[in-house]
Amino acid sequence: MKIIMDAMGGDNAPAEFLKGAFQAANEFGVEMILVGRGEELLRIMKQLGYDTLPQGVQIANADEVVDMHDDPATVLHTRKNSSMVLGLKMLADGMGDAFISAGNTGALLSAATLLVKRVKGIRRAAFGPITPTKSGSAVIIDAGANAECSPEFLLQFGCMGSYYAKKALNLEQPRVALLNNGTEDSKGTDLQKQAYGLLRQAGDKGVIRFVGNVEAREFMLGGADVLVCDGFSGNVLLKSIEGTAMYMSSLLKGIFTKNLATKLAAAICSSGIKELKGLMDYRRVGGTMLIGISKPVIKAHGSSDALAVKNAVQQAIGVVNSGICDDIRDNVDKMILPRETQANA
Amino acid sequence: MKIIMDAMGGDNAPAEFLKGAFQAANEFGVEMILVGRGEELLRIMKQLGYDTLPQGVQIANADEVVDMHDDPATVLHTRKNSSMVLGLKMLADGMGDAFISAGNTGALLSAATLLVKRVKGIRRAAFGPITPTKSGSAVIIDAGANAECSPEFLLQFGCMGSYYAKKALNLEQPRVALLNNGTEDSKGTDLQKQAYGLLRQAGDKGVIRFVGNVEAREFMLGGADVLVCDGFSGNVLLKSIEGTAMYMSSLLKGIFTKNLATKLAAAICSSGIKELKGLMDYRRVGGTMLIGISKPVIKAHGSSDALAVKNAVQQAIGVVNSGICDDIRDNVDKMILPRETQANA
Repeated sequence: MKIIMDAMGGDNAPAEFLKGAFQAANEFGVEMILVGRGEELLRIMKQLGYDTLPQGVQIANADEVVDMHDDPATVLHTRKNSSMVLGLKMLADGMGDAFISAGNTGALLSAATLLVKRVKGIRRAAFGPITPTKSGSAVIIDAGANAECSPEFLLQFGCMGSYYAKKALNLEQPRVALLNNGTEDSKGTDLQKQAYGLLRQAGDKGVIRFVGNVEAREFMLGGADVLVCDGFSGNVLLKSIEGTAMYMSSLLKGIFTKNLATKLAAAICSSGIKELKGLMDYRRVGGTMLIGISKPVIKAHGSSDALAVKNAVQQAIGVVNSGICDDIRDNVDKMILPRETQANA
Repeated sequence: MKIIMDAMGGDNAPAEFLKGAFQAANEFGVEMILVGRGEELLRIMKQLGYDTLPQGVQIANADEVVDMHDDPATVLHTRKNSSMVLGLKMLADGMGDAFISAGNTGALLSAATLLVKRVKGIRRAAFGPITPTKSGSAVIIDAGANAECSPEFLLQFGCMGSYYAKKALNLEQPRVALLNNGTEDSKGTDLQKQAYGLLRQAGDKGVIRFVGNVEAREFMLGGADVLVCDGFSGNVLLKSIEGTAMYMSSLLKGIFTKNLATKLAAAICSSGIKELKGLMDYRRVGGTMLIGISKPVIKAHGSSDALAVKNAVQQAIGVVNSGICDDIRDNVDKMILPRETQANA
C-alpha cells in the first residue's frame, strides 16, 4: 500500500511529518510518498539523524505550499505546484492509495473535490471525525465542510456515515440520528424537518438504522453512532466538545495542583487521568476522512505532531483496507432522491 | 417586591416549589404568590410541616396545569385556567414584579409573548442563560427560543444580551461575539454573514462592544461575555456543553472509584471536586431570563429542586432590581434596522 502525504501542511511541518511518516513506514510496513520541497525535506531528514531515506519512503518534489490564508476556491490555480495540489493529483492518477494533509482545510476540500472528485451521485463531501462519547465512539457528519446544506445533503451524510461507521467503528447496524433541538418529529428549522422525513424513509427502507432526532446532550451520553448535521451545527458541536473538555481539564489541573496532598492524589490517579487525557486527545484518531470523495483523503489536525501523523497514516490504511469508498459507490443509488437525480443529471 | 411563581410546572412540582418559595420568602424578604391548585398546595404545605402559609406567601388558585405535551401555540386557549397562563396574566396586570415557571418551555415563551408582550420594537424574545467559561461567566443568546432567525434578530440579541450582561455579570463593556465556524468576516451561512455586518455597525456606533466571530471552542475558553447565535445553534452549544460535562464527570467518577487508593485521592480533592460539580450544576444560577419580554419572566430548569427554585427567585429579584427590561426599552431604537422599522411599523 502507498500513502501519499503532504509534508508541508500544518503547524509542525515538515519535521513532525517526516518523523511520523518514517515511524509509520517502519511500523506498518507501508510505502510513504512525502510531497514537499525536496531540498528542505532532505535537510531536515539529516537533522533528524538519517543519512538516507528509510526503506519505503520516497520524496516527490513540490515547490509551493498552500498556506492558511490562501483562498480555497482558487488554490488549484494559485498554488498549482503546491504539495497539496500535486499530492491530490498523484492520488487521482493512481500513484497511491490515500492522501493525507494537515494543511488549509477549505483548500483540501475544494482541491480534493475538483481533482479526485466525489463519488458520482454524491452532492457534497463531508468531514466525519470520530469522537468519544459515553457509549464508546461516534461519527459526526458533517463536522464542518458545508456550512449551508440541503435536506438531500443530510440524507447522504446519514447514509455515507452509516457505511463509514460500519467499517470504522466495526458496527453491524450503526444507530443514525439527526442532530436537533428536541426529539419530537417536528423539531428544528425547515432543514431538519425535511431531512428528518428523508432519513426516516431511508430507515423504513432498511438503508440505514435511523433512530430519530437527538439533542447534543444525549448524543454525548451515547445516543447515536452516527450524528447527522449541517456543517455549521457540526462545527459548533465539535468545537464546544473540545472547548468544554479543555475548560474542564484546566479546572481539574487546578484541583490537583492546589497543594502537596492534592498532588499526591493526582499521582494516585495518574493512570486514570492519563487515560482521560488520551480520550480527549485529537492525536488519538489522527485525522478526519473526507467522506464522499472517490478515493481516501484524510485531513490531519493542523497541529499534528509525529504521533498524530503516524495515527493518521494508520487511519488511512484502515480506510483503504475497509473499502469504504467502494461501499459508498456501490450504494449511492439508495442515497439519491429520484426527482433530484433527474433535475441534476 | 412580589414574585409570582407557577407552582405546578416542572418535574418536582409542587412540593419542591413550595419548599423553595418558602425558603426564598424567608431568606430574601420578598412576597411570593404561588399559582396552582389551591387544595393540593395546602395539603402539601401541611405534609411539609406547616399549619399555615409562611409570612409573605400567598396562593392564587389555578385549576389547570400546562403539561409538557401541550402545543405551545394554542396553550392560551386550551389551558386558559392553568397556573402558567394565570400567573402571566397577573404579571401583565401588575400584580407582581416577576414571574417564574419551570413548565413547558415553548408554552412559556409563547404565552409570555402574547400576554406580557415583547418590548415594543423587539422582534423576538430570546433565552439568555448564563454559562460558566474559563474566564468566568457568559450569556448565550439565543439558547433555544427561536430555531429560525433573521439577521436583525441576531442584532437585537447582541444588543439585549449586552444590556443584560452589564447588569447580570456586572460588566461595564461586555464583549459581544457572534458564534461562527471560523473567525474570518466571511465565515458562516448567509445568516451569520449578514448578522456580522449588522453587529459590526452596532459596534462602530458604540451601541455594543463587538469583538467579531468566535468559534465554540474559544467561547468556552473565555472569548466572549455575550455569545450571539440563532436558537438552533445555541441549543446545540448549550446541550453539548452539558453533555460533555456530564460525560467527563462520569469518566472522573470512574477514575476516583477504581480502588481504595483512588477513593482516598477523591477524599483529598473533595472540596475541589465539589466546586467543579457546583460550577457545572444548573441549580446554581436557577433559571434563564426570557430577554426581550417587557417584564421579568424567568424559565427555571424543568428538574428544579427547592434549591434551584430558591436561586431562581434570587435571580428574579436581581433582574427586577437591575431594571434590565427598562434598559432594553430605553435603548430599543438602537436595535432596530431603519428600513425594517418602516416596513413593520
